[in-house]
Amino acid sequence: MLRMYDLAGADPALRFSPYCWRIRMALAHKGLDVETIPWRFSDRDLLGPSGGARVPVLVSGEEWIADSWRIANWLEDRYPDRPALFGSPEARSLCRLHSVYGDVLVGQLARFLLVDIAVRLDARDVDYFRGSREKRFGATLEDVVADRDARLPAFREGLVAMRSTLKSQPFLGGAGPMYADYAVFGAFQWARAISPFRILERDDPVAQWRERLLDAFDGLARRSPGYD
Amino acid sequence: MLRMYDLAGADPALRFSPYCWRIRMALAHKGLDVETIPWRFSDRDLLGPSGGARVPVLVSGEEWIADSWRIANWLEDRYPDRPALFGSPEARSLCRLHSVYGDVLVGQLARFLLVDIAVRLDARDVDYFRGSREKRFGATLEDVVADRDARLPAFREGLVAMRSTLKSQPFLGGAGPMYADYAVFGAFQWARAISPFRILERDDPVAQWRERLLDAFDGLARRSPGYD
Repeated sequence: MLRMYDLAGADPALRFSPYCWRIRMALAHKGLDVETIPWRFSDRDLLGPSGGARVPVLVSGEEWIADSWRIANWLEDRYPDRPALFGSPEARSLCRLHSVYGDVLVGQLARFLLVDIAVRLDARDVDYFRGSREKRFGATLEDVVADRDARLPAFREGLVAMRSTLKSQPFLGGAGPMYADYAVFGAFQWARAISPFRILERDDPVAQWRERLLDAFDGLARRSPGYD
Repeated sequence: MLRMYDLAGADPALRFSPYCWRIRMALAHKGLDVETIPWRFSDRDLLGPSGGARVPVLVSGEEWIADSWRIANWLEDRYPDRPALFGSPEARSLCRLHSVYGDVLVGQLARFLLVDIAVRLDARDVDYFRGSREKRFGATLEDVVADRDARLPAFREGLVAMRSTLKSQPFLGGAGPMYADYAVFGAFQWARAISPFRILERDDPVAQWRERLLDAFDGLARRSPGYD
């Protein structure tokens, strides 16, 4: 049985890491069962063998694999006969852009979500989270998100490349979802898990794509605690 | 012999359409010879059978194919035994994002380049170009580009996803260039053809990727009239 360390809030059922969600979806795509272990920022020691202090970390027997991109590649190589996450060596290379684009979205969305995250964290994590993020953004969490309503239209406008792609095909990967989709979806599932702030307008093709991914795998992502 | 209508300036050797450059590179990738026919915005009647008023238009015998994405797909399907532009059905779907991202870059770069384009156009094209673009941007060309130095850092910062991808692999398509690369490179080759304005810093991984594409196919893009 695979095990995955999965970022959780004060409520252990609240799983909200955008990077962990990539792998939850990838595991479901491969049809693999996983035991997810709730993990908090304060639980660094638990990840010792992975060499890092971040999740997701996947554990398979004696192997500890960290970093969502490395885990996705490990899954594809370890389970080549199960549904493909990439589809070809070329597709795997092309997915780097989608994966990095997902990272960029996380950075952009953080400026809307930081306070909503802080209030849902385990008490042990709050000081670390506030300190590290306030240092990174150079402002209090409250100041970072203060003008989020004013910044929302520019964020939505910035999704133009995704939106245009999703007007011509249902998923970034084509007719069905691929790792490219999960890499980007993770950012939106993170937002949904942690905040009632409405990131997308309902009639946006990006929102419709998100709905399709919420429905995937018998509603795996939709059944997880979150908003709307 | 394939023929391609290719946007030209007052100097017929100046070929600067970002969309035509995608196809010039794709044709070279496939090892296909092409006769490029200089075309100006005023030459709409020449494209009659393609049903459009835009280039590139590729002509193969009685077939007229318009639109860079459709042409790339036509080339891949028509010449499956030559080097692949995509590599798999999944890779083809994933490339939609790269292609649309190239379109987005063209829109962003236009705000730096409009005046440089106008002064290099064939005299017959100037009124059409100025009128259509000033309507689209809601300002004179000169006003659109006036603050381009101030806007350049934000443009460069916006390339973060490309930059991060190109730190881990030499091309968007992986170890070698694919259509994904040409779809984005077209925007930079357009800028290079038409303007001395320095879009990229030399030590930017994106600039280094651009250099590799300028060198590709015996310097096909580098030998074409342009700056630096």
